[in-house]
Amino acid sequence: MAHGTETWTVTERRELADYRIFKAAELRSLGPHGKEGRFVILDAPDWAVVVPVVVREGGRFILSVRQYRHGSGVVSAEFPGGVVEPGEAPAAAAARELLEETGYSAGRVVHLGSCSPNPAFMANTFHVFAAEDLSLVAGQSLDEHELVDVEETPEDELLARVGEPPWSHALMMTAAWYYRKWRERSDL
Amino acid sequence: MAHGTETWTVTERRELADYRIFKAAELRSLGPHGKEGRFVILDAPDWAVVVPVVVREGGRFILSVRQYRHGSGVVSAEFPGGVVEPGEAPAAAAARELLEETGYSAGRVVHLGSCSPNPAFMANTFHVFAAEDLSLVAGQSLDEHELVDVEETPEDELLARVGEPPWSHALMMTAAWYYRKWRERSDL
Repeated sequence: MAHGTETWTVTERRELADYRIFKAAELRSLGPHGKEGRFVILDAPDWAVVVPVVVREGGRFILSVRQYRHGSGVVSAEFPGGVVEPGEAPAAAAARELLEETGYSAGRVVHLGSCSPNPAFMANTFHVFAAEDLSLVAGQSLDEHELVDVEETPEDELLARVGEPPWSHALMMTAAWYYRKWRERSDL
Repeated sequence: MAHGTETWTVTERRELADYRIFKAAELRSLGPHGKEGRFVILDAPDWAVVVPVVVREGGRFILSVRQYRHGSGVVSAEFPGGVVEPGEAPAAAAARELLEETGYSAGRVVHLGSCSPNPAFMANTFHVFAAEDLSLVAGQSLDEHELVDVEETPEDELLARVGEPPWSHALMMTAAWYYRKWRERSDL
């Protein structure tokens, strides 16, 4: 019997390091097989991204952003998003990031789904939203090292691109997965 | 001008810690805006997952696994997968993980796509495969703390579940995204 559906019990937790964007900790945990192991995990704030939808001449267009990413070392095309601040609702974070990165304010923010970015070692949650009834109300409002270009693409063309460079951010495929399921439910 | 499509130049790299499943490093990097910043990144081996497809009585079924995950602290339903070992081809890693976790050997392994798990701070690559012509050739061959249950689900039922608990691993939605695109191309 593999015990794959049983939970473990954390018996000890040791903080390892605080890297600001996440903290590393080591858990000692007792499994259903009666053995203990040690596992490194990362605690990070929750993240939120938003698929911003503009309806123009009867067609749907999606706003996206391009920015250099320091992990991969390449420019990445993404939906707007970022960190959920302490005490902030995920939907509010999505709307705030949309405004900061694109200057667009959303009349309606719809929760499409939430999941774990990587449950093997990440303890936080990733939230996905759609934004509708968009109005351009401001310029970008970015941090010192945030350099973000905004683009607008027909919905079908954009969804066809997600998964190939520069649309190579796994969490953007996750967001597209939720978005596409939502559209399929809505179009029923 | 936002400079979002221009790359940065790493001017210094400092190793911070080795946590075995990944190493933390701090990069000093010069941006197209003429300023330098410091960014923490994680170096990890590449990861591979495989969507194993069984054809039975004309219908397609997908094999998946359930296991407790120490980051999220809950049981997670996933496609088989794991770390690509040094010198190992990603497709070979996918076939090996499939065999170890389920006992199935694959006659055909198809590359569906590759991307970055999280380009903001992860330096590694995530590879997605489909496996076909499966034969049950062995029992599970798991590590000491790997407790994995195997399941078989009709393809349409499984794809409907991905995104809701226990199918809450973002990278599994990424894999499902690639898989669905591949099916749509194949069914043309």
